[in-house]
Amino acid sequence: MNLQTTIAQFKEYLGRMKMYHSAMAVIYFDTATVAPKGDIEGRARRSGFFAAEMYAMGTNDTMKNLLEALAPHVDELDTATAAMYRLAKKQYDKVVKIPVDKIRAFSELRSKSQAVWEEARKNNDFAAFAPYLKQLVPAVKEQVEYIRHDDASTYDYLLDDYEEGMTMEVYDEYFAKVRAAIVPLLKGVTESRKKIDTSFVNEFVSIADQRKISEFIAKKIGYDLNRGYIAETVHPFCNGSSRNDVRITTRYDENDFLSNLFTILHECGHAIYEQNTGEDLLGTILARGASSGLHESQSRFYENVIGRSEAFWDYITDELKTYLPPAFKGVTARQFFEAANRAAPSLIRVEADELTYSLHCLIRYEIERMLFTQDIDVMELPSIWNSKYEEYLGITPPNDALGVLQDVHWSGAMFGYFLTYSLGSAYAAQFAAYIKKELDFDAAIRKGDFVQITNWLTEKIHRHGLTYTPRDLVKNIADEQLNADYYTQYLNDKFKTLYQL
Amino acid sequence: MNLQTTIAQFKEYLGRMKMYHSAMAVIYFDTATVAPKGDIEGRARRSGFFAAEMYAMGTNDTMKNLLEALAPHVDELDTATAAMYRLAKKQYDKVVKIPVDKIRAFSELRSKSQAVWEEARKNNDFAAFAPYLKQLVPAVKEQVEYIRHDDASTYDYLLDDYEEGMTMEVYDEYFAKVRAAIVPLLKGVTESRKKIDTSFVNEFVSIADQRKISEFIAKKIGYDLNRGYIAETVHPFCNGSSRNDVRITTRYDENDFLSNLFTILHECGHAIYEQNTGEDLLGTILARGASSGLHESQSRFYENVIGRSEAFWDYITDELKTYLPPAFKGVTARQFFEAANRAAPSLIRVEADELTYSLHCLIRYEIERMLFTQDIDVMELPSIWNSKYEEYLGITPPNDALGVLQDVHWSGAMFGYFLTYSLGSAYAAQFAAYIKKELDFDAAIRKGDFVQITNWLTEKIHRHGLTYTPRDLVKNIADEQLNADYYTQYLNDKFKTLYQL
Repeated sequence: MNLQTTIAQFKEYLGRMKMYHSAMAVIYFDTATVAPKGDIEGRARRSGFFAAEMYAMGTNDTMKNLLEALAPHVDELDTATAAMYRLAKKQYDKVVKIPVDKIRAFSELRSKSQAVWEEARKNNDFAAFAPYLKQLVPAVKEQVEYIRHDDASTYDYLLDDYEEGMTMEVYDEYFAKVRAAIVPLLKGVTESRKKIDTSFVNEFVSIADQRKISEFIAKKIGYDLNRGYIAETVHPFCNGSSRNDVRITTRYDENDFLSNLFTILHECGHAIYEQNTGEDLLGTILARGASSGLHESQSRFYENVIGRSEAFWDYITDELKTYLPPAFKGVTARQFFEAANRAAPSLIRVEADELTYSLHCLIRYEIERMLFTQDIDVMELPSIWNSKYEEYLGITPPNDALGVLQDVHWSGAMFGYFLTYSLGSAYAAQFAAYIKKELDFDAAIRKGDFVQITNWLTEKIHRHGLTYTPRDLVKNIADEQLNADYYTQYLNDKFKTLYQL
Repeated sequence: MNLQTTIAQFKEYLGRMKMYHSAMAVIYFDTATVAPKGDIEGRARRSGFFAAEMYAMGTNDTMKNLLEALAPHVDELDTATAAMYRLAKKQYDKVVKIPVDKIRAFSELRSKSQAVWEEARKNNDFAAFAPYLKQLVPAVKEQVEYIRHDDASTYDYLLDDYEEGMTMEVYDEYFAKVRAAIVPLLKGVTESRKKIDTSFVNEFVSIADQRKISEFIAKKIGYDLNRGYIAETVHPFCNGSSRNDVRITTRYDENDFLSNLFTILHECGHAIYEQNTGEDLLGTILARGASSGLHESQSRFYENVIGRSEAFWDYITDELKTYLPPAFKGVTARQFFEAANRAAPSLIRVEADELTYSLHCLIRYEIERMLFTQDIDVMELPSIWNSKYEEYLGITPPNDALGVLQDVHWSGAMFGYFLTYSLGSAYAAQFAAYIKKELDFDAAIRKGDFVQITNWLTEKIHRHGLTYTPRDLVKNIADEQLNADYYTQYLNDKFKTLYQL
């Protein structure tokens, strides 16, 4: 068979897989929003069934033969096809190399661990979860043992798996800079005489009004509601089945309307990324954000770099007030801006402010690194956790539910993932610095012209989808890799001014 | 291979097909409720893709081999397995006998016809649609030619296809009785001095209040919301992916709260049927209502036989008023009951009252029968249509949009389907007559004890799902087939009393 025919078959086959992915995205959204409680078991069975169908498609003989037929011609493939080959091959290798009984056992251990973790967190009982965490680390090591090509350590493999190109060496250097910048900055903020008034933030805003605010903000920032939808869930997320159907969810607190407003901006960032993947990628497996880190860079860009800028509040305050009750009448743009940027040490990662967020990721990174490279007793984790919170944030969790047990990730064997959250903030600052060289960023925001900013991001990032590795994608922008200096500079500029340091 | 192994494989294979059906049910619901407009094309492509996947599963070699292996043993199969065999075989035969290019051409003709019909109705332009209708009838005849086993006429084949066991002979007799009863009854109603006051029905009720009424009524009647969900769409429907996930939709008119109330009762009837299919059928292809006619019998049972009874209004009025604005304060149960049963000739089938509904079906039946058994010119249909409306209902449509162009069915080649709507009403009355022999129906309704009524229906009908043909299912209840006398008696009893005839 000639190469062109093989390529056509390969693309057709991946297109079929994409159909399943899109269908499952819709079903996932349905499950998270309206699906009745009474069918939880049925849905679990069905999602297991379709996961197995997709697994089979990615690893069966059709896929094997296509990959083998293409292997000698990798250098002849165009960029998009080469990217599809790389992704399909990676997925194929990952699975076929692990014996099926090991996959099953690992999957069962994960399910069980998640259930135990949920109870353990509820009961503030780390000892109940510890035996599972103790099994998860070697289980992950065993899985990686089967897959990896080289001598990279397990943890390096995991870091690369979540964010291609990342290693402990890269993160060590990155977090060293981040820690060196944020820890003293936070100390300055905490000791500053400047106090930010946030009392008005908790004034009552009805959910009906907040729904209108959601739509108002989403439209302003450039989320295309004709190709989107805003729903409500306990845990907000963004979910897309194609660039033409990218949905977000939020949650409402009647006594904290800003919480929803920033959730909307955050999820809109993810959604704008997906909505602007190239039309030429539609229906292919490349029609998705390039990585967790890059996806998070977009959500944080719209949430923080734009949404928490003074220019944004100068622009939005008057019109926003038309949706707010009279209690907000006297609040100025400056007051909103300051309240949106109040920084303080806190215990819970998902509630952390822009300044302290990366410290939470750093602590998790240091602990994961120990788990995979040193011989530590998992029962020591609570005390390690607490001493790190004391060291970096100056506070100690009163219990493990508010400490080491707070995140779901480890119970699901997601070691190496937290870092991508912090990368998101760093990339967002880096991209903002590039953009500012090309246009008057604050002036654009101050007049609500988000389009030219989004156009820049689309041109450099969004439209490429998964065509490039995150490493190459970033390098293509300004011939530079991840550089924490932009991020630390951004934080210093913002918080030194705000807190008069 | 031994028979038990073949049966197990057969069931496993059908279970896989059911997984796809359930997934597509969820996606259908999503499309109808929240899916963004911007992805209409993408969704059409995906639904086409999955339809083809399911088509392939039902007709591929695996299915062929399983059916062939079971064929010699049909008499040895238990009832449920025999039913699965019957359904799978019917579907298989239907498709494999028609050449693929004919299926494709037919499908394209249907799509095109539906698009043309939509425009034609909008523009009140029957001449635009006529050429398509003219092609559809012979196209359907050609399809049936490939499939049918015997010498049955095309129209008899279609009638049986939509409602197993039905023929022109059965329907001729059925509609003769229906016409003989309803036409004079409607004349009596129209000429009666008794006039029903319905003015209060149009008092404003906010959508927020009506949503509460929906939930209130749904719960009262026995729709399990833990295994259900109420959404909003232009065209209400019921949609289930399993007995544990059966959803309904409704629409709200602020100036006609009864419209929603009866829509809820109607869709709850469908939903209660699906929610009460046997647990032993869960995940099998038998876990669905037995036929269109029987499904409609349940929706009309809850909507009309219960919901439009005086006993129901005696029971519900006081509590319902707690959800209604003060304008309804003085309205009595009797007034609600009468308003809910006001009968009058009207042009539009979907808005017809309980008395006249079957006349609309009758007219469509007579016209379809002509189209398939006589050589009539489709251009004559508007005048045939109009003269029948004049003859049976005493009114003439002012234009074709309100006449022959009003229904989507013919443009989709659904000839033979309208009858099942009328069957639903007739079966509902027949079942009610049986129930009344066993329990004090009105007394049960008057105290809101719908459970014992639903239990009867579940025992005789719901739990069996698709295990029996509709014909056998009905026969098993009281050793009797469809009998229009129950229906005509029911209508006479109700409307003679109400209109003092």
